[in-house]
Amino acid sequence: MFLTRLTATLCMYTVRFRDPAGAIREGTWHGDTVSFADAEYALDEVDVLSPTDPSKVVCIGLNYADHAAESNAEIPDRPLLFLKGPNAVAGHGDRLALPADKDEIEYEAELGVVIDHQCKHVDAADAEDVIRGYTCVNDISNRDDQQVEQNWIRGKAFDHAAPMGPVIASPDNLDDDAAIRLIHNGEIKQDSTIDQLIFSIPELIEEITTYMTLEAGDVISTGTPAGVGPLSDGDEVAVEIDGVGTLRNTIEIP
Amino acid sequence: MFLTRLTATLCMYTVRFRDPAGAIREGTWHGDTVSFADAEYALDEVDVLSPTDPSKVVCIGLNYADHAAESNAEIPDRPLLFLKGPNAVAGHGDRLALPADKDEIEYEAELGVVIDHQCKHVDAADAEDVIRGYTCVNDISNRDDQQVEQNWIRGKAFDHAAPMGPVIASPDNLDDDAAIRLIHNGEIKQDSTIDQLIFSIPELIEEITTYMTLEAGDVISTGTPAGVGPLSDGDEVAVEIDGVGTLRNTIEIP
Repeated sequence: MFLTRLTATLCMYTVRFRDPAGAIREGTWHGDTVSFADAEYALDEVDVLSPTDPSKVVCIGLNYADHAAESNAEIPDRPLLFLKGPNAVAGHGDRLALPADKDEIEYEAELGVVIDHQCKHVDAADAEDVIRGYTCVNDISNRDDQQVEQNWIRGKAFDHAAPMGPVIASPDNLDDDAAIRLIHNGEIKQDSTIDQLIFSIPELIEEITTYMTLEAGDVISTGTPAGVGPLSDGDEVAVEIDGVGTLRNTIEIP
Repeated sequence: MFLTRLTATLCMYTVRFRDPAGAIREGTWHGDTVSFADAEYALDEVDVLSPTDPSKVVCIGLNYADHAAESNAEIPDRPLLFLKGPNAVAGHGDRLALPADKDEIEYEAELGVVIDHQCKHVDAADAEDVIRGYTCVNDISNRDDQQVEQNWIRGKAFDHAAPMGPVIASPDNLDDDAAIRLIHNGEIKQDSTIDQLIFSIPELIEEITTYMTLEAGDVISTGTPAGVGPLSDGDEVAVEIDGVGTLRNTIEIP
């Protein structure tokens, strides 16, 4: 009994949802149901929202060697940073309306780090203290524009370019070599492990907070492995990270 | 009487401040005093805050020909966009703590457009409808990093990189050829007019909202004219736009 309760305390999956009365709740994910206080709901009774409402999403480019290679890019000598605003955020199960008239919009499966509390100038050695947990992120990318602009704004910061979820998994759920996969219309397209990150999560937190304050709920999206590929209208896409969960979305391209 | 009231209604200067009791108020700026409801305060009784609390600041690079020339950059064929997050925002009168150990951090005087309400896919012809008013922005830039990174994050999105204020001036306050100046330790360093913008404000709003939703209070910073230059610890810097106001800050570089 003691062990069961301990496990339940440590291995938490937090979900944000709109309950049948319209209230936004930060509750617990149980797989087929979600709960808040003494109320439990089937998933189809609620709207699952993004598990956090970040003031910004700080993203990392070229943080897996195999993806840098497939992109014909050098491995950077320090983290390649870019930003997505709150307009980019979407949740599990959302239909993602993406920019029209583009030839190449692609998925990118990524591990998201959710920040626990406001912080700046965090040493890598202390970085675990500021991590609330982990989520799945799909860093959706419009290559038409990304390839021709200095800052990846049209390319990466458009509405719905950062679906995330379904949960925030507490840190103990994530193994150091957890598998990360992208499943596109039922087919595995990306398949790697998070120990392949070039810059580790503590290194990323130290570097980012050298320059900017991170707020509670902000997300660092840590980069994608090889296997990125195109999305079309009506596609089903999922980001799956062992110990964290599976983020599913449907694509809508006008 | 009627005319006086009409003028007062049209030519509004909105200021956000923390009153002596600690409440955050959105009130009216009268130059030497600010007011909210029936209370009026001297400026030294309140903390003037950034006049808006944006979810994002969308910035434009190289939008004056003379600044593109001094930067040895081509005039872009469409707006060069970049982002600053809420961590970059600071207010009038704030002491701006900037990144340490950089050789070249510079000021950039810019006209800021404050968005009135949530919008997307706004035609240039309708852009005036979504403008709440104008403010002064200093697009503070860390050239050491900007010059070597793909996305201008360390270079442009650090804490305090977007001081703005002191007010939101209602649209009728801004002439089409209003002067914009940067004053550095009492000396005019940038001196231009906003009719020199390469991409007009309506064109910028149409282009940005093609890709992203703008929220009430978001800011578009429209680019800087020639004359940018370095900042040092202890400097006094001001952005002055005729009809809008004067944003003053002190620089702190560790």
